[in-house]
Amino acid sequence: IHSKLHNVGTTIFTVMSQLAAEHGAVNLGQGFPDFPMSDELVSLVDKAMRNGWNQYTHMNGLPLLRERLAAKAAQLYGAAIDPDAQITITPGGTYAIYTALTTVLQPGDEVIVFEPAYDSYIPNIEINGAKPVLIPLRYPGYSIPWDEVRSKISGRTRMIMINSPHNPTGSVLREEDMRQLQEIVAGTHIIVLSDEVYEHLIFDGIAHQSVLRYPALLERSFVCFSFGKTYHCTGWKMGYCISAPSLMQEFRKVHQFNCFSCDTSKQVALAEYITHEDAYLSLSDFMQQKRDYFRKLMEATPFRCIPSHGSYFECYGYGHFSNETDKELAIRLTREYGIATIPVSAFYKEGKDDKVLRFCFAKKEQTLERAVEKLVHLC
Amino acid sequence: IHSKLHNVGTTIFTVMSQLAAEHGAVNLGQGFPDFPMSDELVSLVDKAMRNGWNQYTHMNGLPLLRERLAAKAAQLYGAAIDPDAQITITPGGTYAIYTALTTVLQPGDEVIVFEPAYDSYIPNIEINGAKPVLIPLRYPGYSIPWDEVRSKISGRTRMIMINSPHNPTGSVLREEDMRQLQEIVAGTHIIVLSDEVYEHLIFDGIAHQSVLRYPALLERSFVCFSFGKTYHCTGWKMGYCISAPSLMQEFRKVHQFNCFSCDTSKQVALAEYITHEDAYLSLSDFMQQKRDYFRKLMEATPFRCIPSHGSYFECYGYGHFSNETDKELAIRLTREYGIATIPVSAFYKEGKDDKVLRFCFAKKEQTLERAVEKLVHLC
Ligand SMILES: CSCCC(=O)C(=O)O
Ligand SMILES: CSCCC(=O)C(=O)O
Repeated sequence: IHSKLHNVGTTIFTVMSQLAAEHGAVNLGQGFPDFPMSDELVSLVDKAMRNGWNQYTHMNGLPLLRERLAAKAAQLYGAAIDPDAQITITPGGTYAIYTALTTVLQPGDEVIVFEPAYDSYIPNIEINGAKPVLIPLRYPGYSIPWDEVRSKISGRTRMIMINSPHNPTGSVLREEDMRQLQEIVAGTHIIVLSDEVYEHLIFDGIAHQSVLRYPALLERSFVCFSFGKTYHCTGWKMGYCISAPSLMQEFRKVHQFNCFSCDTSKQVALAEYITHEDAYLSLSDFMQQKRDYFRKLMEATPFRCIPSHGSYFECYGYGHFSNETDKELAIRLTREYGIATIPVSAFYKEGKDDKVLRFCFAKKEQTLERAVEKLVHLC
Repeated sequence: IHSKLHNVGTTIFTVMSQLAAEHGAVNLGQGFPDFPMSDELVSLVDKAMRNGWNQYTHMNGLPLLRERLAAKAAQLYGAAIDPDAQITITPGGTYAIYTALTTVLQPGDEVIVFEPAYDSYIPNIEINGAKPVLIPLRYPGYSIPWDEVRSKISGRTRMIMINSPHNPTGSVLREEDMRQLQEIVAGTHIIVLSDEVYEHLIFDGIAHQSVLRYPALLERSFVCFSFGKTYHCTGWKMGYCISAPSLMQEFRKVHQFNCFSCDTSKQVALAEYITHEDAYLSLSDFMQQKRDYFRKLMEATPFRCIPSHGSYFECYGYGHFSNETDKELAIRLTREYGIATIPVSAFYKEGKDDKVLRFCFAKKEQTLERAVEKLVHLC
């Protein structure tokens, strides 16, 4: 068959996780915690299964869970969300992004994507016959160059994708960014896709600029969230999408014939657990401590920190002490120093190499210590 | 936005399940059991979660589960399957079908689909810009008219979709069908998609004609399976796809950017539970008893049985006593007789109405009794 994704190999997360396993390296590559999730949430799933919640639930997601997500959106972001018309539960944030792009994109459409970018965005666009219009974030602060965005808008621009807190860099959007975005899309047919899977992982006292705060944006946006990143259970593959009713109607047409519905017992459990506000409200502090601890450890290594303000990740530059490509260094660190990372060039379509590695700090302190230990001797 | 699926409304399964709920009707519509799944399997999931299996597993699926599925395929169907190169675990059989079609289809391609057909097939084809070429199964036996297939093959035919045991009719393919199919595709570039989610639900001593039995077919096929239909847990949304290595390589490119990976703890549990061969080997007998019981009950009603040989379903005709459309009758039965079914016209793109309803008999005997009770007075 004729490949629809010629240039696509296996995702870098899988490649590095496998290499880490082969070499018994500490895995600071793919983004997942190594500490346990809530026992209570596990027990709620078990209870739900034993109570017989093992058959299809509603295609759009368990109604009670959607109601509570709407209540949460109202409380956190002042958003008025209709759970029946605007929320769909998905098997993960990645699936929500795929489905939103597939809902909207027609061959020939253009989508503005900021690089570095989570590696699913561009293949998702291309598989729909659309064209990514790539704009590099300003290195090293990774902010959006809004003037360049303006200059790249064309009659074919169908979507703009934003992601805050940002994977892989941990940069975060500010009110001023949201103002610029609103100005640019006002009066156009441009749809916004906002990847907010790290909404509860934002540091240094900064407020998350959810699209849900901005009615003028929300009316033209898909906003994608993740339960896995919030509740330390990335392997559950549960997320959700919030959008304007007219967009959600089309999203659901794709969803109902893509995976149709999501795991029932986990939705029952999440609907109950989500009432513990503290579980998500305390998460930023908890994870900021990890970032700070990791950053401190890294000071004893030759790496230069590119400060993260959110997500699971912090990036570090090494161009001042090595000429290796970031892939070469990532492989060498895995093999010789027992630590797996992600080379940031993997987040650029053309493999732009700024000599930066991404580290996942969502780990136990002792894991972070073990990971960095040997790096002290790196040269 | 411009809808990609103009003609698509909400899937009939959701419509009828909602109507059933509103009227407190017994739901013999959507295909799911109302009896409990295995306690042991539930306990295995709980154990896996408590053992920390809550983070991303391998993108292609837990290696041990894939190994055991390969061993099962060897034992049941004599197939030599490489678990690394030929099996991917998916969030449900419906997702496996979507992903296989999206992997292969380009705008302008033609796909041969037999009607009545599970209602995701045609939208899945259309969303990829391809064209369904519809061939009605021979009414009322629902067998494939192979001569007509031959006459509909063109240079653009990219795929043929088969489904045995068949949803909605319970018809099953025989060796002769497989011979015909092999003859037709030999020497062409036609890919086969075989939906075998009801592989373990086949009655009357008939052997399931899995594509896995036919190496000459398998080398050009995607074969889609469901754990939910086999283990009485449709709400888990777990399935898998087996294909030739070259096809699987492309399937995985789509999968890795669609949902990336599937629930980890359930895969750990299934890998252990699948060693109980009896759980699936006894399933056909168990379900045949339900079919027989249901059929017997239905004899007291005016409906005419169109015998099912597999799946969860049996179809019944009513044209000899009513002129209502099947949708009208399905709604009336839900409202007035407290029993929800699926009108078979929903499985035809153009809504062809043979005056047939589909009943799901995967229910407790007492549920079946309650459902049919009032139908005795139908006229
Ligand atoms: C499917 S990997 C999801 C994103 C992530 O965790 C990563 O960037 O490492
Ligand atoms: C997602 S509904 C799956 C198929 C089925 O169960 C049905 O046909 O009722």
